[in-house]
Amino acid sequence: MDQKTRFDAAFSAQLDALRAEGNYRWFANLERHAGDFPRATRRHAGGQGDVTVWCSNDYLGMGQHPAVAEAMKAAIDSCGAGAGGTRNISGTNVHHVELERELADLHGKEAALLFTSGYVSNWATLSTLGARLPGCVILSDALNHASMIEGVRHSRAEKRIWKHNDLADLERQLASIEPGRPKLIAFESVYSMDGDIAPIREICDLADRYGAMTYLDEVHAVGLYGPRGGGVAEREGLMDRITVIEGTLGKAFGVVGGYIAASAAVCDFVRSFASGFIFTTSLPPAVAAGACVSIRHLKESDAERLAQRRAVALLRARLDRLGIPHLPNPSHIVPVMVKDPVKCKLLSDILLDEHGIYVQPINYPTVPKGTERLRFTPSPLHSEADIDRLASALHGLWSQCALARAAA
Amino acid sequence: MDQKTRFDAAFSAQLDALRAEGNYRWFANLERHAGDFPRATRRHAGGQGDVTVWCSNDYLGMGQHPAVAEAMKAAIDSCGAGAGGTRNISGTNVHHVELERELADLHGKEAALLFTSGYVSNWATLSTLGARLPGCVILSDALNHASMIEGVRHSRAEKRIWKHNDLADLERQLASIEPGRPKLIAFESVYSMDGDIAPIREICDLADRYGAMTYLDEVHAVGLYGPRGGGVAEREGLMDRITVIEGTLGKAFGVVGGYIAASAAVCDFVRSFASGFIFTTSLPPAVAAGACVSIRHLKESDAERLAQRRAVALLRARLDRLGIPHLPNPSHIVPVMVKDPVKCKLLSDILLDEHGIYVQPINYPTVPKGTERLRFTPSPLHSEADIDRLASALHGLWSQCALARAAA
Repeated sequence: MDQKTRFDAAFSAQLDALRAEGNYRWFANLERHAGDFPRATRRHAGGQGDVTVWCSNDYLGMGQHPAVAEAMKAAIDSCGAGAGGTRNISGTNVHHVELERELADLHGKEAALLFTSGYVSNWATLSTLGARLPGCVILSDALNHASMIEGVRHSRAEKRIWKHNDLADLERQLASIEPGRPKLIAFESVYSMDGDIAPIREICDLADRYGAMTYLDEVHAVGLYGPRGGGVAEREGLMDRITVIEGTLGKAFGVVGGYIAASAAVCDFVRSFASGFIFTTSLPPAVAAGACVSIRHLKESDAERLAQRRAVALLRARLDRLGIPHLPNPSHIVPVMVKDPVKCKLLSDILLDEHGIYVQPINYPTVPKGTERLRFTPSPLHSEADIDRLASALHGLWSQCALARAAA
Repeated sequence: MDQKTRFDAAFSAQLDALRAEGNYRWFANLERHAGDFPRATRRHAGGQGDVTVWCSNDYLGMGQHPAVAEAMKAAIDSCGAGAGGTRNISGTNVHHVELERELADLHGKEAALLFTSGYVSNWATLSTLGARLPGCVILSDALNHASMIEGVRHSRAEKRIWKHNDLADLERQLASIEPGRPKLIAFESVYSMDGDIAPIREICDLADRYGAMTYLDEVHAVGLYGPRGGGVAEREGLMDRITVIEGTLGKAFGVVGGYIAASAAVCDFVRSFASGFIFTTSLPPAVAAGACVSIRHLKESDAERLAQRRAVALLRARLDRLGIPHLPNPSHIVPVMVKDPVKCKLLSDILLDEHGIYVQPINYPTVPKGTERLRFTPSPLHSEADIDRLASALHGLWSQCALARAAA
């Protein structure tokens, strides 16, 4: 066996294990059609066909908004394709500066700081705060996103995991930490896979009582909640009580990138010390320009949010009528639970091949084993007919595969 | 003192220390003008003015190439602004698939895998390989980029740092590791701050002798070296001897994003297990489309590379004639050594304010303290007149500030 073959054998063995447990992932090759979302062309070995996308995180369809596209194209024409450097070395463009102002304003904070992705914003900020505040303890919700977990881990600060959304457990842990140590409570507003929402006010109360800082990931909420799309903390009037609000430009805002909004001192601190911020080419000016227009639009317009809520309510009503079990939650995410990786993949394959409905099976490591699901994200662009087609397809599958119905 | 004030005080104290040592960073707010690179408008507190950018990593000016811009705009028109999801959940677009094929072909590998940035590609790949290969030892060059260092650190694999480009030290360390353990030698081809180039062939020989895998960061080389822009390993005919080649779309290719090219098994392994790949929104289709066109262009065209080499040689000749000390190296990077953070910042301020020449002072933590420098990156777009103006401005400053000349 030559060396390459020997190395590859080690990698293939772990991939085989993934396949055996049904968790190997195939990516669907899609081409969304701007102006015609949620429709896309899917290319596969046997040819290609049209599908309706039911699992995008472009929650409001802003990715096809003409003003966003125009802003991006204008920036390409004026500034070129890429930024040409890191933020410090020739890569700060006027569009980055404007976008950071827009984001600070969105969250009522003194400043904001852009990252190449939401993943990087969580990872870089948490790892920097945890590593650079001597004695810091990070209290991390048990269901926090992978990017937060990796950031906390990378910081090597002491970590306390508290039970998901459990105030009593959080308080117990806060009370057990020496009062003088810096403490940071890290959590999300909308948890993306279950769609439940954190008790932000009560967490802030605990933070005040125990002198802790708060770090809130609003990636599945910005653009979607609050009168200006500032997220759940805006809706509840709590933005000023959060030390660091983290968000994304890649979901409801329809583009790509991540950010934090916080005091000028916090943003300057992360800007000055975070390896994942400093040593990377900045986002293309066109991305910043597009995101800026998208945020401004959703600050003014409620139409997309209202239409999305109607679509979510309609899908839930249809599923209830047909007895298709879905996880109840107060958000825009509709998880239909299958609880088996192989069945989950099978259902999604049939939906795709026979009904032109694309919903990715969600399995480990995105969710715990045994909680595999189909996760639907109705948008303002899904028509009543789309929703009926989806409900009817699921209805047929539930009979065909003898899956359990929800109690009436 | 309220809580916010108290928290901010902790952050401000560390920022004050940065300021005191001259390492606090101010970002220049620039707007490059597509079609007129390296010219840009700089906005500042006192107004705005035109500058010539001398420190961009858009090394060949591909960021303003009309074909790249057209490809990006066409993809925005057809597919929209963002990808709308992670690669696994609705975010794989036909442009990502094509780009990965193009990259695999560029490096003569079976496969390639895209990441949101070069930073993330290094961090995610090294942390996944190091963490998932039981008993793995990573042998890391002492001057590796921050993203590689953080990836190795995050993997928690055993790390051995070998002296920069020192084959004897590398061999000594390889020989001291138990023969049965997986070993990975991680290094760069062109080191970005000194511009020196690794002895790739000899490192591959050692890797063969000791049964080690090789991981080569070519971010400052792809597009620039080799007959098709495959990097230094292509130029030397060594691509097939490297286990993983890592590159960027954000420097010579002019856009943004990172990648690895390797065997199908390695790419599938990283695709399946790397948190930083899995849990993040994929690059906008337009970014992938633009990068694809840029790579294809530089596979065919040598004109940009040749013009860049002429500009580099011309600048070096001018500096030599005037006795301005610069680090000799076999690459396209021209570091003019100042060796003091405060003077380095002062020189760059004068160049900017009095001469309209923008070059960012490079200081800690990008380079070790005491090796502060001005790092010039001549491109095909810098004219002989630009080069003359730069050399003449430096000449004046060297006299004005009584800086040491190089020996004749």
